[in-house]
Amino acid sequence: MEEMKITSMQNPRVKAVVTLQQKSAERRRTGLFVVEGKRELEHCVRMGLEVKEVFVCREIAGEVEAQTNTLEVSKEVYEKMAYRGSTEGVMAVVKSQERKLEDLRLSQNPLIVVVERVEKPGNLGAILRSADAAGADAVVVCNALTDLWNPNLIRSSIGAVFTVPCVVCSSEECIAFLKARGIQILTAQLQDSELYYNTDMKCGTAIVMGTESTGLTEVWRKAADAHIRIPMLGRLDSLNVSVSAAVLLFEAVRQRGGSQG
Amino acid sequence: MEEMKITSMQNPRVKAVVTLQQKSAERRRTGLFVVEGKRELEHCVRMGLEVKEVFVCREIAGEVEAQTNTLEVSKEVYEKMAYRGSTEGVMAVVKSQERKLEDLRLSQNPLIVVVERVEKPGNLGAILRSADAAGADAVVVCNALTDLWNPNLIRSSIGAVFTVPCVVCSSEECIAFLKARGIQILTAQLQDSELYYNTDMKCGTAIVMGTESTGLTEVWRKAADAHIRIPMLGRLDSLNVSVSAAVLLFEAVRQRGGSQG
Repeated sequence: MEEMKITSMQNPRVKAVVTLQQKSAERRRTGLFVVEGKRELEHCVRMGLEVKEVFVCREIAGEVEAQTNTLEVSKEVYEKMAYRGSTEGVMAVVKSQERKLEDLRLSQNPLIVVVERVEKPGNLGAILRSADAAGADAVVVCNALTDLWNPNLIRSSIGAVFTVPCVVCSSEECIAFLKARGIQILTAQLQDSELYYNTDMKCGTAIVMGTESTGLTEVWRKAADAHIRIPMLGRLDSLNVSVSAAVLLFEAVRQRGGSQG
Repeated sequence: MEEMKITSMQNPRVKAVVTLQQKSAERRRTGLFVVEGKRELEHCVRMGLEVKEVFVCREIAGEVEAQTNTLEVSKEVYEKMAYRGSTEGVMAVVKSQERKLEDLRLSQNPLIVVVERVEKPGNLGAILRSADAAGADAVVVCNALTDLWNPNLIRSSIGAVFTVPCVVCSSEECIAFLKARGIQILTAQLQDSELYYNTDMKCGTAIVMGTESTGLTEVWRKAADAHIRIPMLGRLDSLNVSVSAAVLLFEAVRQRGGSQG
């Protein structure tokens, strides 16, 4: 394997990885994305995703069990392909999988996070990480402005994008899905709202978050069973959207009697 | 004023700003730091900090009320001085102020966040933002690895570093301060812990957070009145430290009956 080590930045496989990292259009066109890090790759495999090629940099990763689809690359090449930093010296090209609302397997009293039009992949990744921790059934991304396989999103989710079932769809589809299943819709918004901890979240619940700048669209406000707010007791007027999501999710965990966690 | 517009990257004032942005040692040596953005600057002024020099880029900011200490700069110069992005075309050099534990004015049942050795300025800034929202009395940074005037910290706090009283000190000093005032110490850690929402936070409370990687040091574990944990119900094993801080802070808000927020 030593002789097959890729050292050229001009290698077509290297170039293909760089393009996948940088361009969502290329990820969409090919149905492929790049995952970095050992644990993240394990989560991909556990989720049942097909791993096309693994790139290993032994100068960073040390000895790694080589498989038939493993290619060795030099440190320079690895760092060119990596989204940020050296990420343990292991990355892979993986086939993405689209999940639909109907594919979701929900628990009896599901807890779902809905995110409408969140711009920053880092925020969406952070929400996924908190959704994993809170044991949420799913995260639904409505009117998405980023794809789920964005390298920044994967990084900030620390792999939760592979452990929490995620669906991308329109707001209308999501609302119809929730209504049909009798899942209450709680929208995070200030107008006509009640304090979030005064709201019953023990039944099936979808917590719906909008953007930090413009909030939720009218279609969600109208579909809501209740509007909920987190009290702002300081001088500034907003929380980070991923922080808000976590506060609301863990209130549901508390009300539901938590767990053995 | 038009004639005095700074257009050279070699201008000594421009170079001084760039150095302050990049080097904590320079911030320490001079007692100065850089703040970017109109609202952030307003928060500085309201906190009583002395503004040494204001730099305005009219191509970005539009018309701005010029004061005696205002200098106009070109877009290129502004962007060189800015930490990231164009931040509204207004930035200033401000004199920092050190606050001591004894300077803190606490409410009757104070709510304090203590952060030990958090590495990332962005995480500390996010904690400050949440502390502002939760109406915390103060944030104490123990054994600091970053200074409070780091540009990334200021940015991610969206100015909360100027609205929430912050103190930098050693863990030992902080523990002595809390014990002397009968403020209970709740450490966020897994070992021998109870679920955070089963812990009474209505009395004076300090919530103590360690690093994501190594957690809290022994001195805090021993000083604790209780160890508290957030249940981890998913596949991954940790929450972001700033998200954890927010979940714990807002549980205190809930228990204390919230507010008019």
